[in-house]
Amino acid sequence: MTSAVTFADVLDAARRIAPFVHRTPVLTCGGLDRASGAALFFKCENFQKVGVFKIRGATNAVSLLSDEEASRGVATHSSGNHAAALAVAARRRGIKAYVVMPRNAPRVKKEAVTGYGAEIVFCEPTLDSRESTLAEVMRRTGASLVHPYNDRRVIAGQGTAALELCEETPGLDVVIAPVGGGGLLSGTAIAVRGMSPDTTVLAAEPERADDACRSFKAGRIIPVEHPDTIADGLRTSLGSLTFPIIREYVSDILTVSEEAIVFAMKLIWERMKIVVEPSASVPLAAVLGHPEKFCGERIGVILSGGNVDLDALPWVG
Amino acid sequence: MTSAVTFADVLDAARRIAPFVHRTPVLTCGGLDRASGAALFFKCENFQKVGVFKIRGATNAVSLLSDEEASRGVATHSSGNHAAALAVAARRRGIKAYVVMPRNAPRVKKEAVTGYGAEIVFCEPTLDSRESTLAEVMRRTGASLVHPYNDRRVIAGQGTAALELCEETPGLDVVIAPVGGGGLLSGTAIAVRGMSPDTTVLAAEPERADDACRSFKAGRIIPVEHPDTIADGLRTSLGSLTFPIIREYVSDILTVSEEAIVFAMKLIWERMKIVVEPSASVPLAAVLGHPEKFCGERIGVILSGGNVDLDALPWVG
Repeated sequence: MTSAVTFADVLDAARRIAPFVHRTPVLTCGGLDRASGAALFFKCENFQKVGVFKIRGATNAVSLLSDEEASRGVATHSSGNHAAALAVAARRRGIKAYVVMPRNAPRVKKEAVTGYGAEIVFCEPTLDSRESTLAEVMRRTGASLVHPYNDRRVIAGQGTAALELCEETPGLDVVIAPVGGGGLLSGTAIAVRGMSPDTTVLAAEPERADDACRSFKAGRIIPVEHPDTIADGLRTSLGSLTFPIIREYVSDILTVSEEAIVFAMKLIWERMKIVVEPSASVPLAAVLGHPEKFCGERIGVILSGGNVDLDALPWVG
Repeated sequence: MTSAVTFADVLDAARRIAPFVHRTPVLTCGGLDRASGAALFFKCENFQKVGVFKIRGATNAVSLLSDEEASRGVATHSSGNHAAALAVAARRRGIKAYVVMPRNAPRVKKEAVTGYGAEIVFCEPTLDSRESTLAEVMRRTGASLVHPYNDRRVIAGQGTAALELCEETPGLDVVIAPVGGGGLLSGTAIAVRGMSPDTTVLAAEPERADDACRSFKAGRIIPVEHPDTIADGLRTSLGSLTFPIIREYVSDILTVSEEAIVFAMKLIWERMKIVVEPSASVPLAAVLGHPEKFCGERIGVILSGGNVDLDALPWVG
């Protein structure tokens, strides 16, 4: 089976986006190595521009537009990190970004997106309204869709984080990434397969949004219903492009409880002195939950982002 | 006037402690550069072992003991970062550390120190009891005193952070460090003078513990009374060794409000995605409070540490 996205696509994306994104550090932590019994190498995308890996895929997608396409702008639906990242990538190229967002989205998310220069188009908080509003925006403006994850350019861009991790840290036994829609995971899988074919790629997912795990087992996409997890970046379902890549290249998907996510998140803050968001803490939660699987291994962990509301920390109150 | 600690002492300390401490990164942040109008270079001692620069001075002091002295251990009075650092430095050399601590110290601080292998000797929460208890410990055990800041070996060790900062970031206009007892500040001043003589050394201090500022102006040590600041690392008074160095090499001491400290701390967490303690945020608070002074300058900022109680953040509740 030929993947919709190739290792060459990831290499091209890396070259293309290098001037516009940070090469984030790979950090280690003696305390967390002792806690896990493994050797952990954290790829710190919380230090990435916009605070999250999403700028990689968004920048790659925007860079690949022709001048004519670019002149009409880009559009997406998202109230979170992808919207902010697309806004920044569009502003960098000097083009418009339209973000379809439910009317009832938190004010802080609206302000973040407009602060980065995007134009918000409000919809009702339903899937139907979101899709029809997005279609209407694209019809009216001619803007190109940049989907948060089900987009070849986005997948290739997200894979560049794992590419850098493998370049800097040879001989990893495992690379583990969180999975929501699967953009980061599928890009990671392609990059790791290309750079380090003997390395196992694993995914970690909240129990309360375990559609990827169930889809993986069932062999077909089972959409998530009522995801209720603190890991707000992982509430989406797999896409038609990401699922086949994950089936082919990912060895297993581990699920973790909400308590384990919060525990891992706080541990990262305390021991590593870095700020990561709940979604980014899911892979460490999975590692800590399976000592029998990971003890003694060299493990690359994708810390996906650091955008968290400091006034509403999950262990406070 | 000849300083009690020389640049050669700092260079010697750097060579001596290099195998045992981290060389911490110097980070920059576009968002904070825009917020300050300056170019900021953060020396991240929050990533240091034990989460704070204190391991540098403690390791230097412990390394300089003769085998005979070392065999009798080290002693100090502190309930905070220095005690933890001295415990770790002593454990590394395989010797005992005695820490005199008030009976009513927070349980978490007691556990931290014993967790690192030190022996706590309790005293009453008065200066008299602390000093007599420490003297009794030293008489009984023969342990060597390693004062938290009024110690030449400690001052030289603390200076190695600024040494690395200046090595990595040439051409700084200013280096700014927090001041409590003055160990970090005096070491920083000697290192900067030696490495980069044209760089101005400034200090930042909480208004509510402004003894260093008042002493600096008065030309004599004025002890702090009832310091009531969130920056718990900066509640101590200058020492007889640190004060003359600070008078000679430091250009000015700026004071900041509690609100400004909390604002700067939260800004660092949000924008840099790193965890720093209140004391470490005092220099950025000073920079943000004096745009007329710092605009356009290249400024080295010592982020002194990252040990903070995540269950009691100052902007929560």
